[in-house]
Amino acid sequence: MRRSVYDDDHEAFRGSVREFLRREVLPHTEEHARAHGFGRDLWRAAGKQGLLGLEVPEEHGGAAAGDYRFNAVLVEELAAVNLALASSLSIHFDVVAGYLAGLTTPEQQARWLPGIASGESVAAIAMTEPSGGSDLAALRTSAVREGDGWRINGSKTFITNGYSADLILVAARTTPDAGARGISLFVVEATREGFSRGRRLDKVGMPEADTAELVFDDVLVPAQNLVGTLDQGFRQMMVNLPRERIGAAVANLAHARAILDETLVYVKDREAFGQPIGSFQHSKFLLADLVTRAEVTQAYVDRCVIAHAEGDLTAVDAAKAKWWTADVQGQILDACLQLHGGYGYMNEYRVARAWKDARVTRIWAGSNEIMKEIIGRDLGL
Amino acid sequence: MRRSVYDDDHEAFRGSVREFLRREVLPHTEEHARAHGFGRDLWRAAGKQGLLGLEVPEEHGGAAAGDYRFNAVLVEELAAVNLALASSLSIHFDVVAGYLAGLTTPEQQARWLPGIASGESVAAIAMTEPSGGSDLAALRTSAVREGDGWRINGSKTFITNGYSADLILVAARTTPDAGARGISLFVVEATREGFSRGRRLDKVGMPEADTAELVFDDVLVPAQNLVGTLDQGFRQMMVNLPRERIGAAVANLAHARAILDETLVYVKDREAFGQPIGSFQHSKFLLADLVTRAEVTQAYVDRCVIAHAEGDLTAVDAAKAKWWTADVQGQILDACLQLHGGYGYMNEYRVARAWKDARVTRIWAGSNEIMKEIIGRDLGL
Amino acid sequence: MRRSVYDDDHEAFRGSVREFLRREVLPHTEEHARAHGFGRDLWRAAGKQGLLGLEVPEEHGGAAAGDYRFNAVLVEELAAVNLALASSLSIHFDVVAGYLAGLTTPEQQARWLPGIASGESVAAIAMTEPSGGSDLAALRTSAVREGDGWRINGSKTFITNGYSADLILVAARTTPDAGARGISLFVVEATREGFSRGRRLDKVGMPEADTAELVFDDVLVPAQNLVGTLDQGFRQMMVNLPRERIGAAVANLAHARAILDETLVYVKDREAFGQPIGSFQHSKFLLADLVTRAEVTQAYVDRCVIAHAEGDLTAVDAAKAKWWTADVQGQILDACLQLHGGYGYMNEYRVARAWKDARVTRIWAGSNEIMKEIIGRDLGL
Amino acid sequence: MRRSVYDDDHEAFRGSVREFLRREVLPHTEEHARAHGFGRDLWRAAGKQGLLGLEVPEEHGGAAAGDYRFNAVLVEELAAVNLALASSLSIHFDVVAGYLAGLTTPEQQARWLPGIASGESVAAIAMTEPSGGSDLAALRTSAVREGDGWRINGSKTFITNGYSADLILVAARTTPDAGARGISLFVVEATREGFSRGRRLDKVGMPEADTAELVFDDVLVPAQNLVGTLDQGFRQMMVNLPRERIGAAVANLAHARAILDETLVYVKDREAFGQPIGSFQHSKFLLADLVTRAEVTQAYVDRCVIAHAEGDLTAVDAAKAKWWTADVQGQILDACLQLHGGYGYMNEYRVARAWKDARVTRIWAGSNEIMKEIIGRDLGL
Repeated sequence: MRRSVYDDDHEAFRGSVREFLRREVLPHTEEHARAHGFGRDLWRAAGKQGLLGLEVPEEHGGAAAGDYRFNAVLVEELAAVNLALASSLSIHFDVVAGYLAGLTTPEQQARWLPGIASGESVAAIAMTEPSGGSDLAALRTSAVREGDGWRINGSKTFITNGYSADLILVAARTTPDAGARGISLFVVEATREGFSRGRRLDKVGMPEADTAELVFDDVLVPAQNLVGTLDQGFRQMMVNLPRERIGAAVANLAHARAILDETLVYVKDREAFGQPIGSFQHSKFLLADLVTRAEVTQAYVDRCVIAHAEGDLTAVDAAKAKWWTADVQGQILDACLQLHGGYGYMNEYRVARAWKDARVTRIWAGSNEIMKEIIGRDLGL
Repeated sequence: MRRSVYDDDHEAFRGSVREFLRREVLPHTEEHARAHGFGRDLWRAAGKQGLLGLEVPEEHGGAAAGDYRFNAVLVEELAAVNLALASSLSIHFDVVAGYLAGLTTPEQQARWLPGIASGESVAAIAMTEPSGGSDLAALRTSAVREGDGWRINGSKTFITNGYSADLILVAARTTPDAGARGISLFVVEATREGFSRGRRLDKVGMPEADTAELVFDDVLVPAQNLVGTLDQGFRQMMVNLPRERIGAAVANLAHARAILDETLVYVKDREAFGQPIGSFQHSKFLLADLVTRAEVTQAYVDRCVIAHAEGDLTAVDAAKAKWWTADVQGQILDACLQLHGGYGYMNEYRVARAWKDARVTRIWAGSNEIMKEIIGRDLGL
Repeated sequence: MRRSVYDDDHEAFRGSVREFLRREVLPHTEEHARAHGFGRDLWRAAGKQGLLGLEVPEEHGGAAAGDYRFNAVLVEELAAVNLALASSLSIHFDVVAGYLAGLTTPEQQARWLPGIASGESVAAIAMTEPSGGSDLAALRTSAVREGDGWRINGSKTFITNGYSADLILVAARTTPDAGARGISLFVVEATREGFSRGRRLDKVGMPEADTAELVFDDVLVPAQNLVGTLDQGFRQMMVNLPRERIGAAVANLAHARAILDETLVYVKDREAFGQPIGSFQHSKFLLADLVTRAEVTQAYVDRCVIAHAEGDLTAVDAAKAKWWTADVQGQILDACLQLHGGYGYMNEYRVARAWKDARVTRIWAGSNEIMKEIIGRDLGL
Repeated sequence: MRRSVYDDDHEAFRGSVREFLRREVLPHTEEHARAHGFGRDLWRAAGKQGLLGLEVPEEHGGAAAGDYRFNAVLVEELAAVNLALASSLSIHFDVVAGYLAGLTTPEQQARWLPGIASGESVAAIAMTEPSGGSDLAALRTSAVREGDGWRINGSKTFITNGYSADLILVAARTTPDAGARGISLFVVEATREGFSRGRRLDKVGMPEADTAELVFDDVLVPAQNLVGTLDQGFRQMMVNLPRERIGAAVANLAHARAILDETLVYVKDREAFGQPIGSFQHSKFLLADLVTRAEVTQAYVDRCVIAHAEGDLTAVDAAKAKWWTADVQGQILDACLQLHGGYGYMNEYRVARAWKDARVTRIWAGSNEIMKEIIGRDLGL
């Protein structure tokens, strides 16, 4: 079935994104993996191409169309090429830019958004802490009022873009012992004294993503770096989570489908016992299952994209999309790897890398267990 | 998320169907199961209510709206009450009526459609044979030209409505040794000499469905009972299969969701170890999974319904919908039964019956394996 | 691989059991299902054959060999024929006889054991209550001291052999508000005033098992009907649970393997699309999986049988065997039914009945969820 | 339950192996991964410790006890530390040594076995070819008679120990067009002219294993390097496969259980939302499942080990053990990774590496699909 979510404008945008990726990303695949990052040049090129300003108003150098479907198209194309690329860029152009565009003052917008749109200033968001995992309400990083500013102490981990970020959106506790009601958001520039980065984390997959620990040791930021309302950070995060989660869902599925498409080509070409391996009934039924699974899931993700574009996507439905697509992605990639036989275990095959990359999506940005907790609570259980 | 497939007219129709079911069906649940059939009164009442004429032109007593979404609404509501009811009625009003409305001459329409619309004449479709299972091209029932008519010999099995049908659409071989290219469709009236019914089949579930074997022993039908083009029966069946399969998919999911909704009520009410059983984390996560699974699947089924309403649904996409929903239905019902503990094994609970009823949907009208064969072939495997 | 658990004596006993079943049970299959019970004649014949006295000392008419492997052989053969038969008889000869042989005084043994060994007196065990499910410590049936006896009030449900039992081992609360420490066991004869049976429960499967609710309405039993130590009933149940659970595990697997063997014959015989259905790669791989699954599980069950024969089986390991075999049984039977196509849904095929019968084993005698709770606690979680 | 397969001698041997691993392997974990190999020193130390001579007769420097259970103990302990270590060493001491001890002349034994026992001469086995995957009968590497020797041409891939091997057991076609009946085995010393190694393969996991492609470009070996009977290589491989597959099964399970044990410690220690994460019901039930799964599987593997020690293990039962343990290993490790949350995705945690390492076991040495083909054929399908 034809998907009905996108119109000609979206597809034209998709074409330009593909062209960009072919030109700027695909030739550098090995380099990005070795360098554990995509490099400043790529960020700037993406900015120039207009890919980083989808949430940034025109006056600040962006091209905010107010239509989430452009974001979704971009995420799909990035993920089809590389899941770490989708993650790295969407944290920046979709998640952080989304927070800032929605919560900041005109002065703040003028300060931060142009750099985001141009790619000069790489953004990250820092919520998770070493001790806390998915339990945001328990976070320990503190921001204490001091003169005209805030003194921030604590550490964050598993931060995507952490190693290269210039501008970090940090969740910190501003009122002790107030649980979820005492958290606020701040922008911390990487140039602030007391800010440092721990080592680049050595991960199972996603070598291109410069995931890092961040340390805030008596970092002083001015009052103007507070984002949104004091002590309302948790609520603001809750408001913004659907965006992050539907973005993750879009990426999860697009990533899996790209590899599934490649696998379909592979199994028609590769022979064993005198016939294409895809023609064995076991393979055929398995692939019929995977394709069905992908298309069923696409129908749901597309409905979520439309709902989000219309401002109607609830946190609960976004949670459903996130965990389900992460599961489906894992199922598809595990089966595709197996269909490649021994070559599926070799890093020179995309499926091998994709399989490792995808393992994190059931964990990050709220694990599948956390998603089910959220959904269960919504069911009144 | 709100479903976007139906508008106010469809929902008004749904309301009237529900009212009908409350009045005419729910009070007789036990009776239908004991009698292994729904009884002539119900067929006539459904006809009077206008439920049997959705594919029948107005001139023949129907209310054909030319909008498949009314069919889908009706199937959803029937299945939510009883899967056998959905099956029994949709074979009649949707499948057989669909064949006849599409393939017959004005004379044939005038002969057959009024009885279908009024419920006076119960319809069945007879494809499967004892020896052949899902392999339609291998069917053995023969129709041999004799004078101005056709002499039919053979037997059919697993025929829904078989025990009460007045009018049976039969697939028979008209050209020997021609495989799929020598099959034609006939209407056989149950009053024809030589037609008899074997015993009512004793099934795992669906006690209300009067499934039977049918025997054609030298049954002579006039030439005017040939439906559509001679020797084109297989192609005609292929053309009509998407309708049957999307109908099955709609029913599978609506049936499972009705029981899932009841289970959600049950687990909040029933206590064990001092707390509602739904509040145990294992139950909560399980239900979060099932609800997600149902909603994801609904998004796909809804897209298929829209595609079918627009005349765009392919046989392959219908096959995807059929096997996937059958699997999901089985998963949901098995889990819901378990959540009921010992009561889930007692027939007085709807979940117990539903679990048995649903087991057939992975098998009938093309098993899940056949569906995967179709999909795999479409993938070029 | 040859199984190493049984020696020639066990296999000779197996032969005699098979002969008995061929003679006394197989000819009456339909009758047992229709009558919802196996009938007094079968109980007496089983007694005469020496099948009911494996736990009863010779002096009371039994043949207690003190070797659990004979019990296991008997359960295997019963379950291979009919799961309800295995359940019905093993509650009697293994579970209740096991309690009584272990906990009673010489006077009690002389009163109760001869009838159990001869089959004159059918036994049941009554733990589960309508309100309580698997939560034994919460049971509400009370036994209050009155003169030289005990006054019992309450009701029990899901009681196997409940409708025909002459002698019921009942768990009742003897000390209020003492949780697990205030429960005692009593034998209640069915002839006692105030004892009545609710209706025979209408179940998903196992039509032959006369499962019933039991009502104790001011039933007075003499002090000599107290079994074991006052207020120690919960502990005594815990001590006896491994026996019940390993017996369930043996039955679960033997039942599934019998149907799997029949299915292997069926798929070689039945053809579709011109070849035996078992020769399709999908079927072949599926059956290879099921056979492996069965044999792997058998290795574990056999080790548990040996451990239990040596008095070493822990409640935790018995719990592992019970839930795992119930799951495997369900997986095997569901796949075997599917391999039968439409015939798998017809009650005339054994697989159809077996599939329904087996659904209860994940629920009864401690659901799979309860088993995992027990195992998890043992892991220190 | 206590395992019954090993006696005190085996356990004493286990103790010495553990001590060896603690001393010689654990301190060098990172080094082995970085160097993509275990280094000559470790091979020699293992030889000195007597770990490499379990299949080598005493006269050639080994300690062949003729009891496979010592091999199994060694494989268990190696795999518990590192799956690549188990693979690397068991190819050498168990597989290749097994072939040679069984098939060679006294002269050949004297030439090759001492180096294997001492670790001076690292062994590999080369069956799989780039074009052929699991289809051994189709192999293309040729050995053509030339004077008093054989001229070998072809290439092999996915060869464990390939990069460091001194002595390679090669399967080559000696009679063209004879399918499985024209294959012979040869030892090729790495010093032979025309032998070269392709690049070290860059794999998903197992960085320590020096997997490589091997190229035979007109390599001339003397007639005395033919192993066993001419043209009987395929049969000889079939005879030796059970050994390789039961060894793989032992390793798969021991590897998974070691990580499962570590995970049980982790989940009791790590807290979230104010309690140990293992105490959440979802985690508790999951771990109860995994532990059951591991112990059930162990029972089967232990029976296979006993059967193999007694010379009774069939190729079919070994195939069952191999695919089943590979599946269970994958299930356990995937769940254990998830239970570690974000840390499970970090290579500094053993579970992260183990998850990647284990992915190959469903593929190598006969994929799970090949195993099911073998089992299905044995079932007569």
